[in-house]
Amino acid sequence: MLTQEVFNSLLDTADLNQLKLELNRLPAVDVGDYIAELPPEKRAIAFRLLNKGQAIDVFEYLPNEVQEELIHALHDSQVFHLVEAMSPDDRAQLFDELPAGVVKRLVQQLSPTERQATATILGYPEYTAGRVMTTEYVRLRQGLTVGEALSKIRLSDRDKEVIYYAYVTDDNRKLVSVVSLRQLLFTIPDTYIGDIASDRVLKARTEMPQEEVAQLMKRYDLIALPVVDREDRLVGIVTIDDVIDILEEEATEDIQKLAGVSGGDEEALSHPRVTITKRLPWLIANIGLYVGAASAIAPFQKTIALVPVLAVIMPILSNTSGNVAIQALSVTVRGLGVGEVTPKDTLQILRKEILAGLGTALALSLSLGILSLIWSPANERWVALVAAAVMAINVLVAASLGTLLPMALKRLRLDPALISGPLLTTILDAVGFLTFLSLISMALRVFG
Amino acid sequence: MLTQEVFNSLLDTADLNQLKLELNRLPAVDVGDYIAELPPEKRAIAFRLLNKGQAIDVFEYLPNEVQEELIHALHDSQVFHLVEAMSPDDRAQLFDELPAGVVKRLVQQLSPTERQATATILGYPEYTAGRVMTTEYVRLRQGLTVGEALSKIRLSDRDKEVIYYAYVTDDNRKLVSVVSLRQLLFTIPDTYIGDIASDRVLKARTEMPQEEVAQLMKRYDLIALPVVDREDRLVGIVTIDDVIDILEEEATEDIQKLAGVSGGDEEALSHPRVTITKRLPWLIANIGLYVGAASAIAPFQKTIALVPVLAVIMPILSNTSGNVAIQALSVTVRGLGVGEVTPKDTLQILRKEILAGLGTALALSLSLGILSLIWSPANERWVALVAAAVMAINVLVAASLGTLLPMALKRLRLDPALISGPLLTTILDAVGFLTFLSLISMALRVFG
Repeated sequence: MLTQEVFNSLLDTADLNQLKLELNRLPAVDVGDYIAELPPEKRAIAFRLLNKGQAIDVFEYLPNEVQEELIHALHDSQVFHLVEAMSPDDRAQLFDELPAGVVKRLVQQLSPTERQATATILGYPEYTAGRVMTTEYVRLRQGLTVGEALSKIRLSDRDKEVIYYAYVTDDNRKLVSVVSLRQLLFTIPDTYIGDIASDRVLKARTEMPQEEVAQLMKRYDLIALPVVDREDRLVGIVTIDDVIDILEEEATEDIQKLAGVSGGDEEALSHPRVTITKRLPWLIANIGLYVGAASAIAPFQKTIALVPVLAVIMPILSNTSGNVAIQALSVTVRGLGVGEVTPKDTLQILRKEILAGLGTALALSLSLGILSLIWSPANERWVALVAAAVMAINVLVAASLGTLLPMALKRLRLDPALISGPLLTTILDAVGFLTFLSLISMALRVFG
Repeated sequence: MLTQEVFNSLLDTADLNQLKLELNRLPAVDVGDYIAELPPEKRAIAFRLLNKGQAIDVFEYLPNEVQEELIHALHDSQVFHLVEAMSPDDRAQLFDELPAGVVKRLVQQLSPTERQATATILGYPEYTAGRVMTTEYVRLRQGLTVGEALSKIRLSDRDKEVIYYAYVTDDNRKLVSVVSLRQLLFTIPDTYIGDIASDRVLKARTEMPQEEVAQLMKRYDLIALPVVDREDRLVGIVTIDDVIDILEEEATEDIQKLAGVSGGDEEALSHPRVTITKRLPWLIANIGLYVGAASAIAPFQKTIALVPVLAVIMPILSNTSGNVAIQALSVTVRGLGVGEVTPKDTLQILRKEILAGLGTALALSLSLGILSLIWSPANERWVALVAAAVMAINVLVAASLGTLLPMALKRLRLDPALISGPLLTTILDAVGFLTFLSLISMALRVFG
């Protein structure tokens, strides 16, 4: 693979013939990356060096904003060819991003079939099967023979995203059965496809959320899944490359939400403005919430002045029980995310977390107890006992909340990752500090 | 799909004929789940109801410990059939888990081909292309025609995991080119495959780490990738369903490591003992580290006794800068995980984080400053100024460390997720508390 540097030097020294040769020889995804990383003014120059087939392939791999830029920079006729040749799902995604005026002009130039395909996809809500499907698939009528089916497949557009499965429909386009290219190939040509096709077809309704589609295809090892409308008519297929993208997106969203980055899917290289917008609201909200936790401490300033070792112990208490909570939370959210557990497993997981939590609580409260003993002046040794007790309770509460809160959200059909790490640790701090300082104050009144 | 309850009632009422019918009709993965969830003593009963083909399919979907249990419970001849029919990569994974004695006995019964296939896979280190590949693929010799190739594919074992690509090798088994079933189907039978096969074959060496294999296949939208040894000889293929599993595993590991769950991949429903083993060492190590942070506070007990509002401010300072760090850390680790960024982007990301961090620092230090003003008694208003300044510095340090540390680990070819959230927040607390309390003490000496 050529490096960006070599490309750039070819472009800069205007050795365009050599560059053209390389750009048309390389995989489209690599050329797409190269063009996307060029300074905007050079992108159209590089893109014009591509021959027609490569240009179509490369265009689909470009980020939406670069596609938009090229649409403005290239001749209308070239733009029309590119957009007409895009697969309908990618085209729908591009149209989502473009200004309405540009979309209108492009749609008018599309052939009726392609226009219809895009309209269909854009008609479904985002993040559903209808939106991520493609309308390019092989459909066979009932009653064909294997030989006829193979001829039909041979005659079909070679661009069809997946021809490894063909879907058999009745006269009303209702999905009846599925047959794989492999089966067709292994069967004598004059067999009827009805005799070999399987009528136990897994399918998704257009409104199925994309993560359920992905989980279904993962579970049954499918490389394509047919999508049907409410009348059970075949309208598209979801392909395995979309599944990979969906699963990665969902995992990224979980990771970011757990860390308190809202909206999910922030890119490491996005604009600082995006970064601030996605993170700052969370931080401010969290300081706001933390005021609650801190207000729990504020009235105890006299207690702290009397027993300043508390200021050493409290951060450890807060930090450690926060860690316990985030461990339980992350394992539960991820378990829900990959479909390994469901809310009906709540009690079983809670039981495990509490059993493990008991061991953890013992070990941690012992550690904190010993440390408190070391740090406390001789007349405040009793603080160690209180610290150890509160630590044990806090750890158990932390492990339980880390399990119960995401489970409850999931049961309410909300996103379990809504309960982020920062939110949970703030709640725990409020509870933990209040308990700890109240107990210390009481002890001071009794013994002090 | 039948529910677990219906199954259980069929099994309990001994309506075995009905149950047998259902079990042989349903997808193997569903039957596998059902059997795995049965109490151990009933698993063998249910498994014996499966007919031979279904038994083979279901067996591959069972968790390794259930497979092991069935191996002990079933007749030797039945076990032999099951193990012989497994795909070599799944079999290698099972052998990894079984006691050496059982493996030895099973290996002796395998046919020479299957024994060789398993030995090959087990010869490669875990988490490499060699270990996750399957040795079932279609290999064609150079010089065949399309018609001959199709006949060869028709005659090949129908169980070959992927027949959608066929790999062309020379007389030394060296990988020469690749041809898709689709291409073969679209071409006149007496064309030579050499004329249509592509010699620009993407491939993985056996020692390539599994996550690189997955990223490569994702990038180029491949449903199979050939694996070659050091002499460039074809030894297996990695299929798309393995890629999905690898990507999910890697994401889970990132999520768990970020939360301080070591070893990765803890299951939400694992035994409490496993939970303790994977989480407690981290927590104890963290308390150990935190002693450093707390020791930074301990010498300042007198300062705290003089200015107890510090005990209210410090947890907010710690919590907020911890959150900033975890946000930056999670976005960077995930960006590295999905291959969106590499260490060479460090400066660019750092620039973004610091720019965004400046805005964040301003907003957060303002918030903390105001809160400190409200909580402080009239003669300690100056504390608010120090708090605001330290908050601003801490936020910038947090955002920078959250970016730099995982990037540095990646550059050292270590796992970027090794720097977990808990570890990073502890470091930040130590630095933040020390700065804050030192500044306050100095101010006390000057103004007090």
